[in-house]
Amino acid sequence: MSKKIVIIGGVGGGMSAATRMRRLDESATITVFEKGPYASYANCGIPYALSKVIRDDAALVLHTPEYFKEVFNIDVYLNTEVVEIDRINEQVCTRTAGEAEIRRVDYDKLILSQGTDAIRPQITGVDQNHVVTLRTLSDLQAIRTLMLQRCPTDVCIIGGGYISLEAAENLRKMKFGVSIVEQGTHVLPPLDADIAQALHAELKRNGVRLFLNDTVRRIEKSYVVMARNGREIPADMVILAAGVTPKTSLAKLAGLEVGKQGVKVESHMETSDEDIYAVGDMVETKHMIQKQPCVVALGGPANRQGRLAADHIAGKPVHYRGNIGTTICQVFDLTVGLAGLSVAALRRLGQEPLWVTVHPPHHASYYPDAHPITIKTAFERGTGRILGVQAVGMAGVDKRIDVLATAMQAGMTVLDLEHLELSYAPPYGSAKDAVNMVGFVSSNLLRGDYKLVHAEDISVENLSAWQVVDVRSPDEFATGHLPHAINLPIGTLRDRVSKIDNSIPTLVYCSVGYRGYLAYRILSQRGFNVVNLDGGLKTVVEGGIKI
Amino acid sequence: MSKKIVIIGGVGGGMSAATRMRRLDESATITVFEKGPYASYANCGIPYALSKVIRDDAALVLHTPEYFKEVFNIDVYLNTEVVEIDRINEQVCTRTAGEAEIRRVDYDKLILSQGTDAIRPQITGVDQNHVVTLRTLSDLQAIRTLMLQRCPTDVCIIGGGYISLEAAENLRKMKFGVSIVEQGTHVLPPLDADIAQALHAELKRNGVRLFLNDTVRRIEKSYVVMARNGREIPADMVILAAGVTPKTSLAKLAGLEVGKQGVKVESHMETSDEDIYAVGDMVETKHMIQKQPCVVALGGPANRQGRLAADHIAGKPVHYRGNIGTTICQVFDLTVGLAGLSVAALRRLGQEPLWVTVHPPHHASYYPDAHPITIKTAFERGTGRILGVQAVGMAGVDKRIDVLATAMQAGMTVLDLEHLELSYAPPYGSAKDAVNMVGFVSSNLLRGDYKLVHAEDISVENLSAWQVVDVRSPDEFATGHLPHAINLPIGTLRDRVSKIDNSIPTLVYCSVGYRGYLAYRILSQRGFNVVNLDGGLKTVVEGGIKI
Repeated sequence: MSKKIVIIGGVGGGMSAATRMRRLDESATITVFEKGPYASYANCGIPYALSKVIRDDAALVLHTPEYFKEVFNIDVYLNTEVVEIDRINEQVCTRTAGEAEIRRVDYDKLILSQGTDAIRPQITGVDQNHVVTLRTLSDLQAIRTLMLQRCPTDVCIIGGGYISLEAAENLRKMKFGVSIVEQGTHVLPPLDADIAQALHAELKRNGVRLFLNDTVRRIEKSYVVMARNGREIPADMVILAAGVTPKTSLAKLAGLEVGKQGVKVESHMETSDEDIYAVGDMVETKHMIQKQPCVVALGGPANRQGRLAADHIAGKPVHYRGNIGTTICQVFDLTVGLAGLSVAALRRLGQEPLWVTVHPPHHASYYPDAHPITIKTAFERGTGRILGVQAVGMAGVDKRIDVLATAMQAGMTVLDLEHLELSYAPPYGSAKDAVNMVGFVSSNLLRGDYKLVHAEDISVENLSAWQVVDVRSPDEFATGHLPHAINLPIGTLRDRVSKIDNSIPTLVYCSVGYRGYLAYRILSQRGFNVVNLDGGLKTVVEGGIKI
Repeated sequence: MSKKIVIIGGVGGGMSAATRMRRLDESATITVFEKGPYASYANCGIPYALSKVIRDDAALVLHTPEYFKEVFNIDVYLNTEVVEIDRINEQVCTRTAGEAEIRRVDYDKLILSQGTDAIRPQITGVDQNHVVTLRTLSDLQAIRTLMLQRCPTDVCIIGGGYISLEAAENLRKMKFGVSIVEQGTHVLPPLDADIAQALHAELKRNGVRLFLNDTVRRIEKSYVVMARNGREIPADMVILAAGVTPKTSLAKLAGLEVGKQGVKVESHMETSDEDIYAVGDMVETKHMIQKQPCVVALGGPANRQGRLAADHIAGKPVHYRGNIGTTICQVFDLTVGLAGLSVAALRRLGQEPLWVTVHPPHHASYYPDAHPITIKTAFERGTGRILGVQAVGMAGVDKRIDVLATAMQAGMTVLDLEHLELSYAPPYGSAKDAVNMVGFVSSNLLRGDYKLVHAEDISVENLSAWQVVDVRSPDEFATGHLPHAINLPIGTLRDRVSKIDNSIPTLVYCSVGYRGYLAYRILSQRGFNVVNLDGGLKTVVEGGIKI
């Protein structure tokens, strides 16, 4: 007898589950109920469609219900909400928009793929019609209509996450005035503050006004009022991008186990009811680094989880390995990426990781247009297990994030990164690739060949406790240096080592960390108690650390 | 007492060893003898310097002897050849160009980093001065002089390897007529022939004349004569790019063990004499896939081996893991990359791997300028261990090669690639990244969910043994199709399945393999004995397979 598979929610995870199910089982009856008006579309492309970087919205509509019927023999019902799950009778109750009738539909296996709701902050005036979200194709159309009707000129984006930054870039392309309001210390809260500083600079360089550590108190017709000082910011359109929350109400109503955030699932995506699966942004899955359940609202995991749920229903011995939260974001001319956890996030979990910051060029430095990538890598003391990687730069960031994400998922340590044989030709990389550089510096630290101090640990006050030695050239020194620093260029250090006192703790530094490391090796072998400044002055300056 | 370290040969491996040695040991005496006129330069950049893509040759000179003295306290002697190694007395005998005197220099540890010689094919006329090589800065200067003196207009490149293709691209930028003569069936012999076809097309599209399966019989002043048919090709400059051979004569003279190609070393780069190390292009190291010693003449491994030899001398418990031969090459608007072995190379080793070919877009297909990447992945039957990856396309190739190279070095299987969480935003990738696609298709094959036939296995003759079903649209079918094919578009297949005979072996295909896979699933579940054409018609057409 043919299995009856019902899927609640189309788009990413749901349609992946549906089509995989069909490929595995020609005899199943597969039905998808989608609350919205599209079966499958690319929500990640929406900010780019707004500005017409993606020229035609139709490009975002990946497939229609007719396509799914014809090619997959899958029935997709749009504008149809599942209002109740009757677990006793294994039925769902559905209602199509504009119709009163409730239909009951049998299932043998049910897959929930309902995604998330945008969080609507409780701000006075938030319910006006010039306050919008930018997540769905319907949102996009609503914004287009609003733009035609009201001809806004200034947009305030509430929230500083990925969608916010993508929206800001595309709105600036359209010549809007753009403000971003972020309640935290920096945009993209999963990142460390120092890495986000480069994004702040890039946003400002492109005319985006940034309001950090602040919130919107009130939304008026043509401006918003800031909470901290009552300042008015022009805004005749407001985009809410303050995060998302898993749609769990239907699951809760059905008595399925729900965690702190999302629906609880086993490693093969089964919920607490063995005939009901859940996938995508609405579920809690294991984070491979923090080892705790978490919600990862990303397209890649959603797609793979949908596929995996279908595999499990078809009897395959599969299990979901968990997430490391690999993300990437274009911010004007910069790319920023993350895999695993930031140092701040690790500390919140009570961990005290080691970490290093390097600034290698994205390809051979002698080949035109080499751009530095700032890579901050956190790893476990003792083992060197990679816990988190953050990278920002103009080119080659996505490659290094993906290589390091792969290394993390393979359980590699920083010691393994030294050995990695990566592709090298001048237009693409270096004989010692940026990833190898991460490996060299991290491994030196892990093995105790090297001691460092981080930019965040130095200040005008505590610098005076060190003998500070700047080993750059006199010309570089003249452009600015740390307080109390004396200048002993690396090439002169051996000859002039008698000028400094080996009884005082010594801090050496250069521009990006390499010459500082050389100085560390020279001085430590001469009995100095010495540390190098991790990532050099560039890390201090880029990280926005005031000294 | 301070150790005396002598290094023969600067540039990549030698200078990496020298500088690492100094960082680890301030007290050592470190001396480098370099036969050529430069201590350290970027030979990989030379083709690009020729055309002034790299504007200034000085950019290629990474560091001078003065720099090494000042910063590293290393003595570098240029134009100085080591003519003999006296292992009994632990001395090297050196001779500086233009001087008669032989100096004897003591060593405690000796590191050989002599690199390779260009192979000079025995061709009549090869010793004329318009016949050059393009490997060193001196070569570059000689070519510049030749161009000024003789104003050549047509260049013939003998050999079709990486340097040949890079030279061809840069010479075309300079408006030279360019011919490439390759004795094998295709350029870049480490690749499979089908993958190289895209390069042939790109070379031709850019005006490069290709002569395959042929050699040069005779070099005249303004033309060369081809071996196969005596044809004359205009060439008033000839570049020899017919490969390299390790410089082993000094090692042989010293009685060190030399293998079939290069100097034999232990896993920590020690030669058969425990006080002599050898690194870089001149040594044989273990190939991680073929498990046999081989010479890998690449910058990355040379640098890491140099570093590792110094580590071992300093007493660190290191060992070299071996190579997988990760390479990348720009060929005009295309990039081609390889990690591990081609299918042909695996077969030559007596292996019968499984493999799949996919053509996913390099980023989200709905985002502008998405370009397909052709990825051919070979893996071990049973285990799924990845044995070789080849990729070619206009963008995103280096990223996928590096991710897959990392996966290979981590010992991942194709099953692991399904799970990889890689970065996704529209400008960078897809929710199902190209690497995941490799994983999905390979795993389906490995698990037996799927049967395929390769383009190389079909011909006009044997196609008649199959019932051939083209599941593309009628419009696509009308643009050309396989012989004997009937057209049953995928959306009609279930309804029209009675039109085909399930007692006859059936071959299904589409444009890139996906719809063919769907058809496979539909038909196999209805009792058909069916195979899908791997990679679809695109693999046939791109692979230059004539049907």
